[in-house]
Amino acid sequence: MTETAKVKARLPRGFVDRAPADLAAQERMLAAIRASYELYGFEAVETPFVEYTETLGKFLPDQDRPNEGVFSFQDDDEQWLSLRYDLTAPLARFVAENFDRLPKPYRSYRAGFVFRNEKPGPGRFRQFMQFDADTVGAASVAADAEICMMAADTLERLGVKRGDYVIKVNNRKVLDGVMEAIGLPDAPEHHQRRLKVLRAIDKLDRLGADGVELLLGKGRKDESGDFTAGAELEAEKIARVLAFTSARKATNAQTLAALEQAAQGSARGSEGVGELREIAAFALAGGYGEDRILIDPSVVRGLEYYTGPVFEAELTFGVTDEKGQPVRFGSVGGGGRYDGLVGRFRTEPVPATGFSIGVSRLFAALKLIDSPIVGAGAQRGPVVVLVMDRERIGAYQKMVAALRAAGVRAELYLGSAGMKAQMKYADKRNAPCVVIQGSDEAAKGEVQIKDLIEGAKAAAAIQSNEEWKSARPAQFSVAEDKLVDAVQEVLARRDA
Amino acid sequence: MTETAKVKARLPRGFVDRAPADLAAQERMLAAIRASYELYGFEAVETPFVEYTETLGKFLPDQDRPNEGVFSFQDDDEQWLSLRYDLTAPLARFVAENFDRLPKPYRSYRAGFVFRNEKPGPGRFRQFMQFDADTVGAASVAADAEICMMAADTLERLGVKRGDYVIKVNNRKVLDGVMEAIGLPDAPEHHQRRLKVLRAIDKLDRLGADGVELLLGKGRKDESGDFTAGAELEAEKIARVLAFTSARKATNAQTLAALEQAAQGSARGSEGVGELREIAAFALAGGYGEDRILIDPSVVRGLEYYTGPVFEAELTFGVTDEKGQPVRFGSVGGGGRYDGLVGRFRTEPVPATGFSIGVSRLFAALKLIDSPIVGAGAQRGPVVVLVMDRERIGAYQKMVAALRAAGVRAELYLGSAGMKAQMKYADKRNAPCVVIQGSDEAAKGEVQIKDLIEGAKAAAAIQSNEEWKSARPAQFSVAEDKLVDAVQEVLARRDA
Repeated sequence: MTETAKVKARLPRGFVDRAPADLAAQERMLAAIRASYELYGFEAVETPFVEYTETLGKFLPDQDRPNEGVFSFQDDDEQWLSLRYDLTAPLARFVAENFDRLPKPYRSYRAGFVFRNEKPGPGRFRQFMQFDADTVGAASVAADAEICMMAADTLERLGVKRGDYVIKVNNRKVLDGVMEAIGLPDAPEHHQRRLKVLRAIDKLDRLGADGVELLLGKGRKDESGDFTAGAELEAEKIARVLAFTSARKATNAQTLAALEQAAQGSARGSEGVGELREIAAFALAGGYGEDRILIDPSVVRGLEYYTGPVFEAELTFGVTDEKGQPVRFGSVGGGGRYDGLVGRFRTEPVPATGFSIGVSRLFAALKLIDSPIVGAGAQRGPVVVLVMDRERIGAYQKMVAALRAAGVRAELYLGSAGMKAQMKYADKRNAPCVVIQGSDEAAKGEVQIKDLIEGAKAAAAIQSNEEWKSARPAQFSVAEDKLVDAVQEVLARRDA
Repeated sequence: MTETAKVKARLPRGFVDRAPADLAAQERMLAAIRASYELYGFEAVETPFVEYTETLGKFLPDQDRPNEGVFSFQDDDEQWLSLRYDLTAPLARFVAENFDRLPKPYRSYRAGFVFRNEKPGPGRFRQFMQFDADTVGAASVAADAEICMMAADTLERLGVKRGDYVIKVNNRKVLDGVMEAIGLPDAPEHHQRRLKVLRAIDKLDRLGADGVELLLGKGRKDESGDFTAGAELEAEKIARVLAFTSARKATNAQTLAALEQAAQGSARGSEGVGELREIAAFALAGGYGEDRILIDPSVVRGLEYYTGPVFEAELTFGVTDEKGQPVRFGSVGGGGRYDGLVGRFRTEPVPATGFSIGVSRLFAALKLIDSPIVGAGAQRGPVVVLVMDRERIGAYQKMVAALRAAGVRAELYLGSAGMKAQMKYADKRNAPCVVIQGSDEAAKGEVQIKDLIEGAKAAAAIQSNEEWKSARPAQFSVAEDKLVDAVQEVLARRDA
């Protein structure tokens, strides 16, 4: 073969490879979520990674920019396909396509990777996993309440203690109602002013109520002297908006009363508050108090397709942010009602609500709180049978086969290195013990077993304690036909 | 909202949606494969779905045909990315990139979807799952033998009986050796004639030895009178090729002797036969006779990158093909040694061997033989609490919460339909029983439980047997606080 230029081996930007300990821990986490969802009668469904681009609600990509946000490509028929960017749009397609045969309401769940064609950055990946649950065909907010209760149960099952999480609930209709009440319903002629008001509300965290008040009125000059024009609302309308932004009170009942005030005069707003009241009541009937399911007007959720209740699962325990400041861990999932999404495909209205977990973020949280679900423990390695004498590899093969037949994870050393490198390999594999048979042992019908865990203990003891000789024997001989028993004894010791 | 044109909900061609029973069964199958591979010391690794196009060994796609066989697209940096089309090329990239920190030999496994941009057809999908295991860094054919033994163990663990499968092993070097022996080594000047010989060999199944003999010599006229030019080999060379194509004998030892004959005079051919001999010996040492691991010169494997031993896992039980003819089920996986693949990225040679299972094909096979691993059993549905009285939905919510707290899969009916439709829904969900509480029962502090399984039995009995009244009661009342106990009793009955 002629020498050719080598290709550089590199993982694409924004993607990750994952190692066995994390894969196993994450699989346990996913299994616990599945069990929780199954208990609520949700059933699994799987859709492909690829959908027609128009299914995802994007317009056909133009030839020059086929990948705005999503990865898109054409198939052999020149149809535009895209990698899914969430699990909701594919579900809507699936339900619309199989509508008649599905039970209604249809509760389903699915975990899967989604893809974003965005600039990757710290914690921002181009492929990441979501775990979604959705109820399609239920107009009642009992379905929303159920999903919030299920989210709470799921977090507890995963090891998050009560008090360390809260499911926050808001309703898009309430803010719509406030906007209606101040004379800015969702219509083209109000577009500019609505936007100003929404932007002002969005700055509450940063500027406080005083700053928002200025932005809703005449405008605001910042420290640098830059002036931001205001929405020019009258005082009473400003008061109305501020009543909304400050509606979160000590109890759900008080919050609901404050929201009622803020949305007064708008049918849509009152409907929204009524729905929140129902959700809180359903939750309470199921035994979920406001320590777990909380009405909170600050929940926004970015996606445009939400039409009613929106939820956020927040972990409330403290962590330290990148600047060393203590902060709450924050959101690990969220969702809401999206009554219009299946309707894109069908003539009848199809109400739906759902909840999506950010899998890697939740996984990181569980590691932070040392949840046993994701605790790796020491990864168990296999027993390694060393190759002392290449001529006798058939005999070694027989030993590993016997170990495996007894259910013992075992492997034959398959490289070409000598004894020392083989021992290093066994260490790297985290082997509990190695099996050694040189020609001397073979002649006597014996094998040596070297217990690497006791061996390591003994080695440590040499430095710290003269009496290390009282440690269990780290290496010993047994008759060939006692190999499996002896290895199992070593493993039992390790587990003891 | 204005009426807009509806998007048609359609699954893209060549892709599938999957239902819960199949997902659960397949997950059990994958878990069994994982357990088998773990026992051999293989560890999990996961790579992303997307790789740089050059990593996959394709040249950069040209703008007009970016998707020849693979789905390709450009990211925001205009780098070409592709969806992986197998799991081997990404593994080679992963190993090359992480070479220094990995144990060597490095045994790993992974299951995952791969993508092909080909015309879909019956049984030909654009997204399908493979389950691969590979050993990288072991030059010894003991690694190939190990993978064959592991494949045999895995099939048995999945419920395939001994005698119903065989792992067939061949070696690319043997055919190379035969070509060398007839004066046609792999060199540009022999390219045309080699191709003729290979094509002739490939027609053995269709034309028999006589047809192949003609094609190796002067050429062959078919029934329609069309003439195919031959390779114009001399008689002794033709005899040599035919010795190879007919080398499969009754025992491994005889087959090896026949191959030795056919490859005589070629160092590469003898090396190949020697390797096959070693593999058979290793297998035997591990307790795997030729009923399980069989030397078979007919195994070809399409992929160009194989450099030595190649394997095919074949299921030998009979099925009926689309023409109604009895045939063997055939291949469910295969693999081989690919010593050059990691070497694309690195200067040192990195030997490797692997085995890939076609997951959906194996799944279909296990269903055919009624393997308990994929046996669905009756899918258990959840208990459904009916909504008789919308005002009292909080009380129903309490009941489902109590059932779930006891570990019983349960759901509240969340639709808006009446009693009859709710019962139909419960049937569709395969519910074991429904819980009913109208205002009469509520007044008495009672609930009704309707056992749908006993109910169905009783209904059947009415037609067949007048004594149906002796059946267990299909519907009965219990006190509200005995609900959970009573439901568990119904479930226990069903399981009895």
